[in-house]
Amino acid sequence: MKRIMLVVAYDGTKYCGWQIQPNGITIEEVLNKALSELLKEPITVIGASRTDSGVHALGNVAIFDTDTRIPGDKISYALNQRLPEDVVIRESKEVDADFHPRRCVSTKTYCYRIMNSRFPVPTERLYSYFVYYPLKEALMSEAASYLIGEHDFKSFCSTGSQVSDTTRTIYDIKVERSEEAITIRIKGNGFLYNMVRIIAGTLIKVGLGAIPAAEVREILLKKDRSYAGPKAPAQGLTLEKIEYSNKCIDTPGEI
Amino acid sequence: MKRIMLVVAYDGTKYCGWQIQPNGITIEEVLNKALSELLKEPITVIGASRTDSGVHALGNVAIFDTDTRIPGDKISYALNQRLPEDVVIRESKEVDADFHPRRCVSTKTYCYRIMNSRFPVPTERLYSYFVYYPLKEALMSEAASYLIGEHDFKSFCSTGSQVSDTTRTIYDIKVERSEEAITIRIKGNGFLYNMVRIIAGTLIKVGLGAIPAAEVREILLKKDRSYAGPKAPAQGLTLEKIEYSNKCIDTPGEI
Repeated sequence: MKRIMLVVAYDGTKYCGWQIQPNGITIEEVLNKALSELLKEPITVIGASRTDSGVHALGNVAIFDTDTRIPGDKISYALNQRLPEDVVIRESKEVDADFHPRRCVSTKTYCYRIMNSRFPVPTERLYSYFVYYPLKEALMSEAASYLIGEHDFKSFCSTGSQVSDTTRTIYDIKVERSEEAITIRIKGNGFLYNMVRIIAGTLIKVGLGAIPAAEVREILLKKDRSYAGPKAPAQGLTLEKIEYSNKCIDTPGEI
Repeated sequence: MKRIMLVVAYDGTKYCGWQIQPNGITIEEVLNKALSELLKEPITVIGASRTDSGVHALGNVAIFDTDTRIPGDKISYALNQRLPEDVVIRESKEVDADFHPRRCVSTKTYCYRIMNSRFPVPTERLYSYFVYYPLKEALMSEAASYLIGEHDFKSFCSTGSQVSDTTRTIYDIKVERSEEAITIRIKGNGFLYNMVRIIAGTLIKVGLGAIPAAEVREILLKKDRSYAGPKAPAQGLTLEKIEYSNKCIDTPGEI
């Protein structure tokens, strides 16, 4: 028995997110099916990040245990042959038996993409959120800077989340504009349910002038979801990468 | 009766190109239907560029004649309400009755996008061509430079094209890399059938080292399609914009 780690990229447009659920096809389901067929044994993957319906990934991580004699680094090639074209295995490799994608210490990088243009661009609609009114990215950057560090992000967590400890550390947030595209890139040690999308929605409100940049500090202190901005739509969000340290201990990350 | 010009953006993925045809839905058909319903008279648009199946546009141009009392610049708003989300009117305005999108002198800009990465990126698959082997963009730039100017582009025109004069002028070609994405941006006074995709396919061969950059000069001189590279796939191509001069005379542009 060996443990294999996969780095998975997907276009989330057609999927009901990562986690298996009764009402639609999910990434987890597609991987389990392709792996079970390939390896001729029942396979159940464990994913690092249970991304929501419509959210994309360049580098989500999953593991599974198998008795196969196919070398770990060759599984990606065989698996890609069996996967639909909107799910791609970037890498596969054998890892230690105690490696766990959610319990081991990691740094996650998410990117939220906004098209701030005079009209919606058809070829961008599946991978960004269209905002018509001009966004001031300098204000968004200022607001974002107040979120860097270790904070209780309860105000930026969807209500109904089961998690008890809502403290997380954001290492960096960069707001950048390239012509009509604005990207918010966030790096942290873990994120609460919908946290990145609520941060994006709040920064958009700041960019529009509806929330003063400095008020983001107070929103944090309120520890109340109702003070932050709306949850920005799923299609703008991409899980870019997850980096693991060597330490394998429980971490509070929920998604 | 007045003549209205539309600037049209579309995601070509689901369409059998611009021009109406019996076996699938086209951009022209979608526009005629939405306009006829909106204006309550039978409308037939004339497009500037009859893009192929799967090709995208940020700024194709079309005209139609109408008796409507809706001001020209307001038609875009009403029309966008009736169009699917993968077709967007960026602008509408009244133009002179003798303006013709194919006969008036214009400069067209096309962009061909390549993802030159170690694995296919799912969120890029609909809008770029995936090339696994490393491309040398400096060689592609050199090869592209030989195509600038007025030349007989017969070698870069799909056989079976009806056009007699295959001379065109390319004002500029830029090959640029940004991380794993390579873009070939071509500006010219008109393009033969499949010309941009054959140029892209030839430059890719050059980038792979399969054709020496300087040989592109000889390919031009051969005036024979069989010497150029293959036609690159449709999904990498976007018609970015069409700029009109004030002169309205016949031009040789075919697409």
